[in-house]
Amino acid sequence: MGHCQDREGLVAAITQWIFENGGNILHLDQHVDPNVSRFFIRVEWDLSSFAIGKNEISDRFKSQVAEQLQLDWSITFSDARPKMVVFVSKEGHCLWDILARYQSEEWNVEIPLIISNHEKFESVARQFGIPFYLFPIARENKSAQERKELDLLEKLKVDFVVLARYMQILSDEFVACYKNPIINIHHSFLPAFAGAKPYHQAYERGVKLIGATAHYVTSVLDEGPIIEQDIVRVSHRDSVSDMIRRGRDLEKVVLSRAIFLHLNRQVIVHGNRTVVFT
Amino acid sequence: MGHCQDREGLVAAITQWIFENGGNILHLDQHVDPNVSRFFIRVEWDLSSFAIGKNEISDRFKSQVAEQLQLDWSITFSDARPKMVVFVSKEGHCLWDILARYQSEEWNVEIPLIISNHEKFESVARQFGIPFYLFPIARENKSAQERKELDLLEKLKVDFVVLARYMQILSDEFVACYKNPIINIHHSFLPAFAGAKPYHQAYERGVKLIGATAHYVTSVLDEGPIIEQDIVRVSHRDSVSDMIRRGRDLEKVVLSRAIFLHLNRQVIVHGNRTVVFT
Amino acid sequence: MGHCQDREGLVAAITQWIFENGGNILHLDQHVDPNVSRFFIRVEWDLSSFAIGKNEISDRFKSQVAEQLQLDWSITFSDARPKMVVFVSKEGHCLWDILARYQSEEWNVEIPLIISNHEKFESVARQFGIPFYLFPIARENKSAQERKELDLLEKLKVDFVVLARYMQILSDEFVACYKNPIINIHHSFLPAFAGAKPYHQAYERGVKLIGATAHYVTSVLDEGPIIEQDIVRVSHRDSVSDMIRRGRDLEKVVLSRAIFLHLNRQVIVHGNRTVVFT
Amino acid sequence: MGHCQDREGLVAAITQWIFENGGNILHLDQHVDPNVSRFFIRVEWDLSSFAIGKNEISDRFKSQVAEQLQLDWSITFSDARPKMVVFVSKEGHCLWDILARYQSEEWNVEIPLIISNHEKFESVARQFGIPFYLFPIARENKSAQERKELDLLEKLKVDFVVLARYMQILSDEFVACYKNPIINIHHSFLPAFAGAKPYHQAYERGVKLIGATAHYVTSVLDEGPIIEQDIVRVSHRDSVSDMIRRGRDLEKVVLSRAIFLHLNRQVIVHGNRTVVFT
Repeated sequence: MGHCQDREGLVAAITQWIFENGGNILHLDQHVDPNVSRFFIRVEWDLSSFAIGKNEISDRFKSQVAEQLQLDWSITFSDARPKMVVFVSKEGHCLWDILARYQSEEWNVEIPLIISNHEKFESVARQFGIPFYLFPIARENKSAQERKELDLLEKLKVDFVVLARYMQILSDEFVACYKNPIINIHHSFLPAFAGAKPYHQAYERGVKLIGATAHYVTSVLDEGPIIEQDIVRVSHRDSVSDMIRRGRDLEKVVLSRAIFLHLNRQVIVHGNRTVVFT
Repeated sequence: MGHCQDREGLVAAITQWIFENGGNILHLDQHVDPNVSRFFIRVEWDLSSFAIGKNEISDRFKSQVAEQLQLDWSITFSDARPKMVVFVSKEGHCLWDILARYQSEEWNVEIPLIISNHEKFESVARQFGIPFYLFPIARENKSAQERKELDLLEKLKVDFVVLARYMQILSDEFVACYKNPIINIHHSFLPAFAGAKPYHQAYERGVKLIGATAHYVTSVLDEGPIIEQDIVRVSHRDSVSDMIRRGRDLEKVVLSRAIFLHLNRQVIVHGNRTVVFT
Repeated sequence: MGHCQDREGLVAAITQWIFENGGNILHLDQHVDPNVSRFFIRVEWDLSSFAIGKNEISDRFKSQVAEQLQLDWSITFSDARPKMVVFVSKEGHCLWDILARYQSEEWNVEIPLIISNHEKFESVARQFGIPFYLFPIARENKSAQERKELDLLEKLKVDFVVLARYMQILSDEFVACYKNPIINIHHSFLPAFAGAKPYHQAYERGVKLIGATAHYVTSVLDEGPIIEQDIVRVSHRDSVSDMIRRGRDLEKVVLSRAIFLHLNRQVIVHGNRTVVFT
Repeated sequence: MGHCQDREGLVAAITQWIFENGGNILHLDQHVDPNVSRFFIRVEWDLSSFAIGKNEISDRFKSQVAEQLQLDWSITFSDARPKMVVFVSKEGHCLWDILARYQSEEWNVEIPLIISNHEKFESVARQFGIPFYLFPIARENKSAQERKELDLLEKLKVDFVVLARYMQILSDEFVACYKNPIINIHHSFLPAFAGAKPYHQAYERGVKLIGATAHYVTSVLDEGPIIEQDIVRVSHRDSVSDMIRRGRDLEKVVLSRAIFLHLNRQVIVHGNRTVVFT
């Protein structure tokens, strides 16, 4: 998976290298964004008769292909099992959806712990055999608590964080310090109804559709690169609490789709936009 | 069709009056908005054996039912044929869609004229046998031109106006003077991307859905009561011009659905929200 | 909730009775199906100042309203907590979704037991503290096992059954004997791809949408009255296993929507069609 | 655009050839169907500094690439303007939608004539300046009339035919004789409700979604490869005529999307399935 300045011969160079080393391409997705003259590519190939050993692939790709093309790239192996930590508060539907998939082994992921600012889901975590860390957040301890959270994420070598309706805004320091991706679910079709109480805002505005948006977290609230969105139709009959109820199904499905895309390395971020190869 | 302060016995009172006069209810939709304690009702009944003559129905309903209930109401007859004027600029897809339905007699409506600030669709109007009035708008003549448009709408007793991708913002004076409904199509899922170039905004934000919104025009741009919205999925492969192309189908269908709902008297406006009885 | 032969004055008669006894109507939905001259109504009213005691409401409604109108009717109270039994086999996503909502108290329902023909979800049932009954089905014992299941349902006074991807076809005898509703989720947009392996059928046919259908079970497989359906877009890139994965989210959400509608008494069955008041 | 038996090095071989001749790849889409071990590719490249003259590209591609790879391929130039003939009967919404796009020059296509079995749209064709040929079909003249239609299509070197709600079933002879693609719109989400009166069938079955399907015509009615499908939600309130009305918008948009995809050479047929590169 990689991207670089667009120019002639990029697909040829990459596919030729795979071919010459005996790899068979299973999937290839390529995209050129003409606005920014940027080339994006995602290739999946079969290693069963590949001439280069697994440990050397990255080095060889770097020296033989990537450096010359000035490609911003990464290679992962489909048997890798990333570590994902879930942050949750008092709304459990996204957490439940994640845990059900986890226990069903729907995703190739490990959840080494759940972090929360409330104790509400401690017993649920226990029910699924996952350690639960409680970090209550108040104005005066926020910075210290986040520091502890960051230490924990680092100690456990967590690959990415999922905010499953975590109702605390992560501080700029947290976002700046944590170098790995953070995926958030916002309960509106962003950029509409950013910020607090989006269903109340949607009700007030009288919209006929409500939505949910999964995005990577950046330092600007609700403005990070969007991974996935979806909507459901509402009517004047839907009160705010009906919207909240109907939105729950949307949120959990949109968030889980985004996690799946992220786990499959189908998402490339460039600037504030994503290329999602599906 | 009416609404009033909610209290006990409203449905009973209205349906009893219809029943006692020999009307058979074909459709009845009722809605109570508990947030504002407001009661909304739409009733369609058969006049074939109704005891009250068509000319007297409104008066009798007023004195026997509406005044007592303090109902904000209107009665229309399904054979009425309202007059609708279409405003258009240089984007023709909504106009074409309206004209095709008009010539096919899909709607029970009369289009006595088309108004534009550009001559582009003059021949199309002629092709459909509809008078076309050209009012080019510049900063210095806007007020005078709008005055002429208003005179024309009044002279022809136009029932409502449709802005079919009319790219001029109607002045506050126009909106204040024209007492009948104005329906606009905005090419985004409002409130996201209000104002100019919504598809460019959508592209920049990297959304995964684009939308269209049909709404009644009020003095605040793109903030009137929403009648209908819909979306279509986009991806990183869609350039701004792809979004514009795909959005055209959305806009025309959403606008035409809103016109149909309006023509069928299925929409009640209250505050900045609509009750749409479908 | 009721339906009867359509004729004049039905809404008036019912609402007048509620009004005269001091009830305030919260929701009223009414529908006339002109094809079969059938009138359907669902009324929710507030009992706080209702003149008739809770225990007598049904009797009084029967003698004072329903008999005269020849209404096929039922009255339920919003604080009732129906008993629902879930049947499951080896696919757990619908079960998980139901259990997460159950533990979150999203629905006003009691799940006294889970029935399965496989032991796979025994530990999951235990995790949620719900009794699990295993009835392995083979050709020779099917009839006897179903008899035991029916006895259990009867003994526990179960109000309705949900087949949450239960992969055994209930025998005609079971369906005939069990008088309460059975809700099934079928993993296609019926009537397309009825029967076995609908995703394989969908793949073979090359459809661009896959769907899920929640319906009441009748003696004819996959042909009962439809409560809810939804679809998701697929492409040539989706293999059968991709469809199965993407369909899971659809199935669980569609089934849970149907259960919610059923629990809220928003569904009236007439013939092989449903009136769903939303 | 091409497809062949999948094996190693296909992408490399094709992209290398383009690169070596100075072409810059604008879009590349590739798909491997592992079920049939088939490789599909669509490449768009810029000819501005391509070393091979436009007239020789096909020959050179054939001898230098395609023959060796046993590729089933075709090359078209984006400035080509295919000839499309529209067949219509008495339902005009798809025709209108096509004609509006045609006159707006939304598509790069030529419509040299419209064929119908009814005179209804003769004046509409004239309004758009397109020759209209009337071929009334009765049992006894069907074969002769179809022969004349085929002669006309051949004489005008028509590239493809669109059945825009043409209510005559083309005979097997017609389908067998006409070697170019025929695109049909069927007013249901196939395979549900194939054959006559799909909205009546949908109403009877009580579905909660209605759909439309654009597909290539083969000798088996409504069973050809599907290009595009979409659905719209309906309820018990929708009568058959409501479904027909709401379906019209679906049909015209789905058909026009399919025509656009076909015109852009984004569709590859293999067996009874399509690969649609979007």
